[in-house]
Amino acid sequence: MFWKKLFEKNQKSDKDLQLIKFILIRFGYRPKNLELFKEALTHKSYSNLSNDPSNERLEYLGDAILDAVIANFLFHKFPDEDEGYLTKVKSKLVSRKTLAELGEAMEIATVLKYNKGRSINLSTLQGNALEALIGAVYLDAGFDKAKSIIEQYIFRNYIDLSKTLEEEIDFKSKLFIWAQKNKLELEFEIISESNEGSHWVYTSQVIINRLAYGRGTGTSKKAAEQEAAKETLVLMGEI
Amino acid sequence: MFWKKLFEKNQKSDKDLQLIKFILIRFGYRPKNLELFKEALTHKSYSNLSNDPSNERLEYLGDAILDAVIANFLFHKFPDEDEGYLTKVKSKLVSRKTLAELGEAMEIATVLKYNKGRSINLSTLQGNALEALIGAVYLDAGFDKAKSIIEQYIFRNYIDLSKTLEEEIDFKSKLFIWAQKNKLELEFEIISESNEGSHWVYTSQVIINRLAYGRGTGTSKKAAEQEAAKETLVLMGEI
Repeated sequence: MFWKKLFEKNQKSDKDLQLIKFILIRFGYRPKNLELFKEALTHKSYSNLSNDPSNERLEYLGDAILDAVIANFLFHKFPDEDEGYLTKVKSKLVSRKTLAELGEAMEIATVLKYNKGRSINLSTLQGNALEALIGAVYLDAGFDKAKSIIEQYIFRNYIDLSKTLEEEIDFKSKLFIWAQKNKLELEFEIISESNEGSHWVYTSQVIINRLAYGRGTGTSKKAAEQEAAKETLVLMGEI
Repeated sequence: MFWKKLFEKNQKSDKDLQLIKFILIRFGYRPKNLELFKEALTHKSYSNLSNDPSNERLEYLGDAILDAVIANFLFHKFPDEDEGYLTKVKSKLVSRKTLAELGEAMEIATVLKYNKGRSINLSTLQGNALEALIGAVYLDAGFDKAKSIIEQYIFRNYIDLSKTLEEEIDFKSKLFIWAQKNKLELEFEIISESNEGSHWVYTSQVIINRLAYGRGTGTSKKAAEQEAAKETLVLMGEI
């Protein structure tokens, strides 16, 4: 009887083996406590029917862990950028949209338990489950392990960071590239700075071949320049 | 010459010693890289004048680390609460207001560099510097160290968690305590549940001595009950 139980306990079902394989391939990680990963892959539409715990608590935890890992990553990656820029890039990287795309690319749906009969947005579900899986890795192996998996596995394999940044964030770089291509002389000028109580407000003016184009304001010179560059790109029909 | 330089390098100024002492007393931690902590304690109103780096980048980092630590803390502290509750408590604990109060209680202003001539909100500055200090600890010693300092030093000494929760979050507990005191029979009843596409909506009804009082809706039973309890407390003039 004892041996039978022990055997049953150590016996992994086919489903368990499939899940372990998935985590190994996608995260380069062998789960210790598989229950955590099962929970991370149980959407509430399924847990409502089965009474298994849903992945929402793990998603809450993983969301915060992912945020800290990305904050740290960008802090080191961009030593010369101010916190406004870092915050902007971070919100892009941890946006619902990026996570949904990531979850989709990682094919999380293949191991996700959800009620297929209901109208659901499968991309969002996969993005949320990805956060829950990060929460599970964190509980299973700690912050540093979660960090290295996110940086070395998920990001390296599934996100083209430079593309993300260039395309959507850095209007100033984009404008410089555009000006160079068109052999135009580009300058940014701070045309006003004013103290508004607790902070300063700067206004930046884009000057192309000595003519004024877009203008932008912000609480740092960099932010004002980004805005000015963006407005100029819009004026030029480039974005 | 070499010896002189070495001596000068190892020689700590009085200001440095004061700073080390502050970190030791408030965080129970001896800084390795003191420059990080100096940066964490340099407000931009001062750095604008001196060209020292300001604490804004460290604040950005510390904010995310603090968020992850609190998320983890609440996840374990409240194993039976759903993510809605955890999110609510977290935003209370990491709110600008709580951080400002913490920074004030820790007397961060005594070591903070800022331009005293400008109109500033010193509480906010101290709250932000506290986040920056958490960022500095994280960079100096890693996540687990930052976690243990936040949990065992900052929280234990400066935050009355149960008071914070009872006072501001948990309307249901508050209503139970109130009912008990007034010897009233209190029940919560789920009077409707409806599927709205991707999620469910629940409505909870508070019943006191068999009469209906406040009613609340939410995407979980718990959330609906909290709302119903809150409405009841308002009806009773208790909040």
